[in-house]
Amino acid sequence: MKEIQSSKNTLIKETKKLQQKKYRQQTQTYLLEGFHLIQEAKAANVALKEVFINQRGLNEWSEWIEENLSDYYLVSDEVLKVLASQPTPQGIIAVAEMPQEVSSDFSGAWLLLDNVQDPGNVGTMIRTADAAGFSGVILGQGSADLYNPKTLRSTQGSLYHLSVQNGELSALIPQFQQAGSPVLGTALDKEAKEYLAVEKMTDFALVMGNEGQGMSSELLAMTDQNLYITIKGQAESLNVAIAAGVLMFHLLK
Amino acid sequence: MKEIQSSKNTLIKETKKLQQKKYRQQTQTYLLEGFHLIQEAKAANVALKEVFINQRGLNEWSEWIEENLSDYYLVSDEVLKVLASQPTPQGIIAVAEMPQEVSSDFSGAWLLLDNVQDPGNVGTMIRTADAAGFSGVILGQGSADLYNPKTLRSTQGSLYHLSVQNGELSALIPQFQQAGSPVLGTALDKEAKEYLAVEKMTDFALVMGNEGQGMSSELLAMTDQNLYITIKGQAESLNVAIAAGVLMFHLLK
Repeated sequence: MKEIQSSKNTLIKETKKLQQKKYRQQTQTYLLEGFHLIQEAKAANVALKEVFINQRGLNEWSEWIEENLSDYYLVSDEVLKVLASQPTPQGIIAVAEMPQEVSSDFSGAWLLLDNVQDPGNVGTMIRTADAAGFSGVILGQGSADLYNPKTLRSTQGSLYHLSVQNGELSALIPQFQQAGSPVLGTALDKEAKEYLAVEKMTDFALVMGNEGQGMSSELLAMTDQNLYITIKGQAESLNVAIAAGVLMFHLLK
Repeated sequence: MKEIQSSKNTLIKETKKLQQKKYRQQTQTYLLEGFHLIQEAKAANVALKEVFINQRGLNEWSEWIEENLSDYYLVSDEVLKVLASQPTPQGIIAVAEMPQEVSSDFSGAWLLLDNVQDPGNVGTMIRTADAAGFSGVILGQGSADLYNPKTLRSTQGSLYHLSVQNGELSALIPQFQQAGSPVLGTALDKEAKEYLAVEKMTDFALVMGNEGQGMSSELLAMTDQNLYITIKGQAESLNVAIAAGVLMFHLLK
């Protein structure tokens, strides 16, 4: 255990750069805030490069820290604040390594995100996909970064429970189809089908689109079937994470 | 049309106070930001006391403004920024009056919120209740304020499409029951029933609980039936707004 009091410390200044996506990609590492996410990461054997804990965190979680961390930095509240994305950080922040291998087994149910931009939506959809029993989530181009602090927080740790990867959806959709998994899009057009009329399935991909524009027309044309949810009231649309939840729980057998 | 350039103007200083719940309650008015929400309010005959528009908003929406507003203030970007909850406000902010009468007809499907604290969750659930064809939403004690800017934004205007009211849930649950509407709670206990085993209904109340603690034990004991959603993966729970969406779309006939 070493101590760092000043936020001007070189390691802290370097670590702070991970708040930017560019540096996360360069180093293939990201910041993980709070005990819950860090416990989930540890349980999933994610490598933690550095761990920064303040005195309060140390008091509160001493047993877990002793059992799980071979080394860590005891830092001042000021240092923790500089690294944190939230005004009142929990007592711990870690630098975690991104996985270098991704699954190429596309069996089971998969959620594909086409340009879903809000980190809270993306994180919540990963959490919901986990709860619904999906095998994985693919973040297509334009979607929020998995390692954005708000995305991570909204996943509530579910990113460690199923396969979550970045991918080019126009290249992946044919792979699902070749493997025998139908690809279901979401749309409000005349050829779409009410989701309740679709039988439950075990192997398929469900594509959700952008918050404002929905799915791109290019991808809509590639799917096997497009679905819609009947809106009964006067709302113009559903929040994309809610629509994904309703569909995922309905579709997976 | 009058002009206000300075954020030190008395009316602006008074209006800014509506960012605090205390002043909203005192005056029974609230701030409404952006053209979409203000159009929805107008369409629902909500009284707008004052409307503040900047030059950009005026250029963009001149036709709608001319047709719909008898009077407004042309304000500087600085003034709009002072009144807005977001760093880059849209070109219009209005002071709207709260409704003074609430529905006491509890027929149809109702969503009851027990201490749901996040404004985004509360707003999203109002939007989803609208889309699912619910008749109303009751915000029980401890729930986020309907007139918080984030709640309003998340409703996407649905607060004007169905009855949304504050209420004491322990007093209202017996009213639903006396009117013949079963009250369904949400819980993860042994006596709860998997939601898929429940037949679709037309008249009922569904109670959703706090993000961390769920429903209070007092209310859980008052319901006719408590429901749960089977979690298939390793997620500990669902986001409350997602769970509400899955249940609302399943339960309402």
